[in-house]
Amino acid sequence: MRTKHALEIVGAIDADPAKIGKDLGEVAGDEAAPWGVAISGDPRAVLDGHVDLVVHSTSSYLEHVKEQLLGCLEAGCCVVSTCEELAYPFQKHTELSAELDNTAKEEGVALVGTGVNPGFVMDKLVLTLATAAQRVDSARAMRIVNASHRRLPLQKKVGAGMTPEEFHAQVAAGVIKHHGLPESVAMVADGLGLAIDDITESIEPVITSEHVKTEFLEVAPGQVAGVHQIARGMSAGKEKVFLELKMYVGAKDPGDTIELEGEPRLVLTIPGGTHGDLATAAVVVNTIPIILAAPAGLRTTRDLALGFFPPNAEP
Amino acid sequence: MRTKHALEIVGAIDADPAKIGKDLGEVAGDEAAPWGVAISGDPRAVLDGHVDLVVHSTSSYLEHVKEQLLGCLEAGCCVVSTCEELAYPFQKHTELSAELDNTAKEEGVALVGTGVNPGFVMDKLVLTLATAAQRVDSARAMRIVNASHRRLPLQKKVGAGMTPEEFHAQVAAGVIKHHGLPESVAMVADGLGLAIDDITESIEPVITSEHVKTEFLEVAPGQVAGVHQIARGMSAGKEKVFLELKMYVGAKDPGDTIELEGEPRLVLTIPGGTHGDLATAAVVVNTIPIILAAPAGLRTTRDLALGFFPPNAEP
Repeated sequence: MRTKHALEIVGAIDADPAKIGKDLGEVAGDEAAPWGVAISGDPRAVLDGHVDLVVHSTSSYLEHVKEQLLGCLEAGCCVVSTCEELAYPFQKHTELSAELDNTAKEEGVALVGTGVNPGFVMDKLVLTLATAAQRVDSARAMRIVNASHRRLPLQKKVGAGMTPEEFHAQVAAGVIKHHGLPESVAMVADGLGLAIDDITESIEPVITSEHVKTEFLEVAPGQVAGVHQIARGMSAGKEKVFLELKMYVGAKDPGDTIELEGEPRLVLTIPGGTHGDLATAAVVVNTIPIILAAPAGLRTTRDLALGFFPPNAEP
Repeated sequence: MRTKHALEIVGAIDADPAKIGKDLGEVAGDEAAPWGVAISGDPRAVLDGHVDLVVHSTSSYLEHVKEQLLGCLEAGCCVVSTCEELAYPFQKHTELSAELDNTAKEEGVALVGTGVNPGFVMDKLVLTLATAAQRVDSARAMRIVNASHRRLPLQKKVGAGMTPEEFHAQVAAGVIKHHGLPESVAMVADGLGLAIDDITESIEPVITSEHVKTEFLEVAPGQVAGVHQIARGMSAGKEKVFLELKMYVGAKDPGDTIELEGEPRLVLTIPGGTHGDLATAAVVVNTIPIILAAPAGLRTTRDLALGFFPPNAEP
């Protein structure tokens, strides 16, 4: 499980009383447990040491993790966070972005929000593909995830097995929602110079017409198989950026597709898609040496030369 | 033609007496010509001015362009070059790489060799995709280019219309060869931490079984339609990196494909491929603001956060 030989895990922090005091390797379910790293409930005690970098994964909302992030930075730690709103926070959280950037610069460390989406497949990869374009008029990214082979919390998070009414109630309550599409829209629009004046977002259920059975649950015809989200970046009423995410059980054609209209027109596909759990962990870990070497401040994957962290590389 | 409003073309240099003295816009065939920029045969006179960056495109061989590049750097100019051997020169030209790096650092400027291939689709894009991988065991990139719709020099360069004997003679004479595959192998191997001990390269003809006709030439069955090159990065006899380039007239399924074996397995395709002429120019121009902002020294696209150069952006 610990495949990057240059990394040493020196501590772990969690708010869950059921985990505090336990060995991290045991909680992570590693065969090589115990690791000799006890989970702590006291961030200061863990960070007041020889910590170079914190992998941070607690909430999707930047306001909720503001103090956690500032605490890491003030302890002199770089941060790679899965907080979706941190992936490109400048529009929604202008002041907080500036505060994080200033604090990081004062401390001489860097932080970034990333993951497979937002952070990679619907934004960074779009901009990377655009390297081969002379002109880009608009961009589209479509991601279809088959939730059948994912863990139960993900299947529940997308609403699989609910009635349409339950689904809409859960959306209204803010429970069902994949975070990060507006952040990806903003990153793509800025990177491509597509001057957008509005970002819209919709969340609808995917209703199945077939019976779908997964390892964990069953969905009857007419029930919700998952979520269908669309975010658009608009310029004077014209769509410039279109991002579509379908995550549902029983999806037959999973995959990621990027289309750039321009000169030349460019299409990129990842047949089967990038596995959300595996790829998010991969993106986070692969970003560790990159953020350690990055200029101090609040970075986004737009600024970073992403790549793979070889097992024997020194960060 | 001049779509990046922040750029000003302040000079042009060529060794061809037929071009010297002419207007650059006229030689480039732009509708908006003349541009009021005369092509000069005297690099010093052009560079001894207010030049921030040189777009350099003269030869595939780094030894041939060494003095040109050093001249640009010593004049305080950043360089984006299409010299294929500059894309990742550390193995083949270790000393010259160090000299270029040192000179660039002394002058406080940066240089990079790039283009669609090497520089982007068979190396940078491979490493970018690997961001989503937890483990990479080996990498493959296959590029099939339909030369039918390309300019005549490209069709001739790949040997279209030759007999197999002529083709092999031209390969032996060093005339037929796409440059840059070994450089891409080295960049991919280094970026993925695949310790290779040998890079092999083969060049074979693609023999057509059908009659192929392009705007410029015809190829009869049994004749050469184009070139088929393979480069491999080997580790103790095992293939770790496989790059295959087929450029021929009449190619029916053009496209770029990347395959990473590992966890998870990842596949990426660009159906139709990235148009060599359009995309090379795009990659070069899009790299201008990136290399201007990069740390001084010899850079490669591996280190750079590539992306699009929006028309209204300031470099």
